[in-house]
Amino acid sequence: MNQIIRRQSKKVMVGDVQIGGGAIIPVQSMTNTFTKDVKSTVYQILSLEEVGCEIIRVAVADMEDAQAIREIKKQIHIPIVADIHFDYRLALSAIENGIDKLRINPGNIGSLERVQKIVAEAKPRNIPIRIGVNAGSIHKNILQKYNGEPTAEGMVESALEHVKILEDLNYDNIVISLKGTDVKMTVDAYHLMATKVDYPLHVGITHAGTLFEGSIRSAIGVGSLLLNGIGDTMRISLTDDPREEVKVAREILKSLNLRNFGITYITCPTCGRTKIQLIELCSKIQEALKNVNKPLTVAIMGCAVNGPGEARQADIGIAGGVGSALLFKKGEIIRKVKEEDLVETLLSEIEKM
Amino acid sequence: MNQIIRRQSKKVMVGDVQIGGGAIIPVQSMTNTFTKDVKSTVYQILSLEEVGCEIIRVAVADMEDAQAIREIKKQIHIPIVADIHFDYRLALSAIENGIDKLRINPGNIGSLERVQKIVAEAKPRNIPIRIGVNAGSIHKNILQKYNGEPTAEGMVESALEHVKILEDLNYDNIVISLKGTDVKMTVDAYHLMATKVDYPLHVGITHAGTLFEGSIRSAIGVGSLLLNGIGDTMRISLTDDPREEVKVAREILKSLNLRNFGITYITCPTCGRTKIQLIELCSKIQEALKNVNKPLTVAIMGCAVNGPGEARQADIGIAGGVGSALLFKKGEIIRKVKEEDLVETLLSEIEKM
Repeated sequence: MNQIIRRQSKKVMVGDVQIGGGAIIPVQSMTNTFTKDVKSTVYQILSLEEVGCEIIRVAVADMEDAQAIREIKKQIHIPIVADIHFDYRLALSAIENGIDKLRINPGNIGSLERVQKIVAEAKPRNIPIRIGVNAGSIHKNILQKYNGEPTAEGMVESALEHVKILEDLNYDNIVISLKGTDVKMTVDAYHLMATKVDYPLHVGITHAGTLFEGSIRSAIGVGSLLLNGIGDTMRISLTDDPREEVKVAREILKSLNLRNFGITYITCPTCGRTKIQLIELCSKIQEALKNVNKPLTVAIMGCAVNGPGEARQADIGIAGGVGSALLFKKGEIIRKVKEEDLVETLLSEIEKM
Repeated sequence: MNQIIRRQSKKVMVGDVQIGGGAIIPVQSMTNTFTKDVKSTVYQILSLEEVGCEIIRVAVADMEDAQAIREIKKQIHIPIVADIHFDYRLALSAIENGIDKLRINPGNIGSLERVQKIVAEAKPRNIPIRIGVNAGSIHKNILQKYNGEPTAEGMVESALEHVKILEDLNYDNIVISLKGTDVKMTVDAYHLMATKVDYPLHVGITHAGTLFEGSIRSAIGVGSLLLNGIGDTMRISLTDDPREEVKVAREILKSLNLRNFGITYITCPTCGRTKIQLIELCSKIQEALKNVNKPLTVAIMGCAVNGPGEARQADIGIAGGVGSALLFKKGEIIRKVKEEDLVETLLSEIEKM
């Protein structure tokens, strides 16, 4: 079939979740509670686990946040990442409290000595460090080199500076991200980075927007990278409930056949040939099948003339007629079903599969 | 900046709307009313014009549909395309009734003589023909060549067969589409076709699904093609109100800076550092600015430490603090604004710009 050939990358372990080295692409999200508010943070993480979040990141803004990690970890089931800006002591405390991964940029924490202290603690515990360069946080000297504007080249150069600091300390348990809000620049940056190193890449578009525009911007950027085999883990960034981030991430992976998350729908957009209430029917069927976890492709097509052929690759489907629909499997028509029996018939057929 | 370099393609005119030849990428949609129901069809087209649809396609399933085009055209303001399967007489009638473009596959209408009849009428009127091959409608002989499975190669080969029929009749007013439900296969097909011909390409993912999954699947496929400079016009296919198709199409084009459709938002996903009600604030600001058509980038960031820097490329933005926010322009902080005055301040600053 049309298989994506993935870029080869090193294997990194975040707790018991593998990133890179050919592993399935785990879905990440980030809490927006105050991390020190353990109850709210745990509640949010559990609700994220429910929708399929596999690695969770929390902001560690002060010592109280860092110390909360110990208690949070006890109550959740997925690895946890500390997001730290500038303060190396927060990283040390996060490690002490059981963090599974750090996101910190070693070039931004003041001195090599401080980086050494972090590496000395992270290394024996096999805690990876994500270097996360954003278009807005490129170092001034690099920015100036590129006319003061963020560029893909500048993002990569900036990230490689951070990488070098760790490599010089003989530390290579590294994940890299290069997020911008500009889709083209971000995609270009990851493509360029993929030619430079074999560290796993955490992909995403940053500050992508609210649910609608953020989903679309992220789907274009992350989707396009994944299509080209680039990306070992992903976080969709949305100004909304983080559960939505997970749903969008999973839908992107599913669209590209990189992960299996239950049923995939092929549904026709309807046109002047459609004589069945297809949009409503789709909702009903999706509602009825929402707990079916089989990796099936189900087609819901508007017209009997083209439906089965157009949805040949579906495992099962229906093609609307007048007051009835044709039931088909793999492009072959099985039988006619009355409109009112459609949902039930489809359900029972799928149960048998 | 990060400009997309577009594939060079021939120019085709659909009424007064240009496709290809370096033109901006027009957004298409398709009605789902019965075309012969002129009142409903016109009503839907006018509501699609309102949200930015620039070319509209209607299904022409019988003579009544074809004849309705004359009256529909009088009442709408955008070019209209007839979608015809198999029956060349419907094409002739659509032309007679003033259609601006045909979507018909010349290899599927029975005989060369019939194609000649269509070409004889279309050519003097400068009516383009879109050849639209779907993964499900690849000819059997080509399917068999590729183990009976739809493939990118098969789609391209099938389309080129149709193209050749028209070229042999000295007709080259052609647009091509190659839609599949499989994102990877569809993207591969367009990439391959782009190396074969210079006809403009109409891009889309077919039967992409309902609003959520359809938007994501389409954004990945169409977005990835556009990122690579491929695509001269587009239709997003969703099982939902066709107005949603236009909104998604516009958002994709906007995300890639290929078209300007008013304000672009950079909004932070919030995290444990955010001390302002950012998600609600975003909704309020987007609501307040929804009628502002200036091509500005507005940032709504959760924290004052990184906000202005991260959103350096924004024309204007705010970065949340406690009970107040910093107003910034192009990464430079202008002043502090109380939380309750934020929406109003932003509006008045934008009016001045």
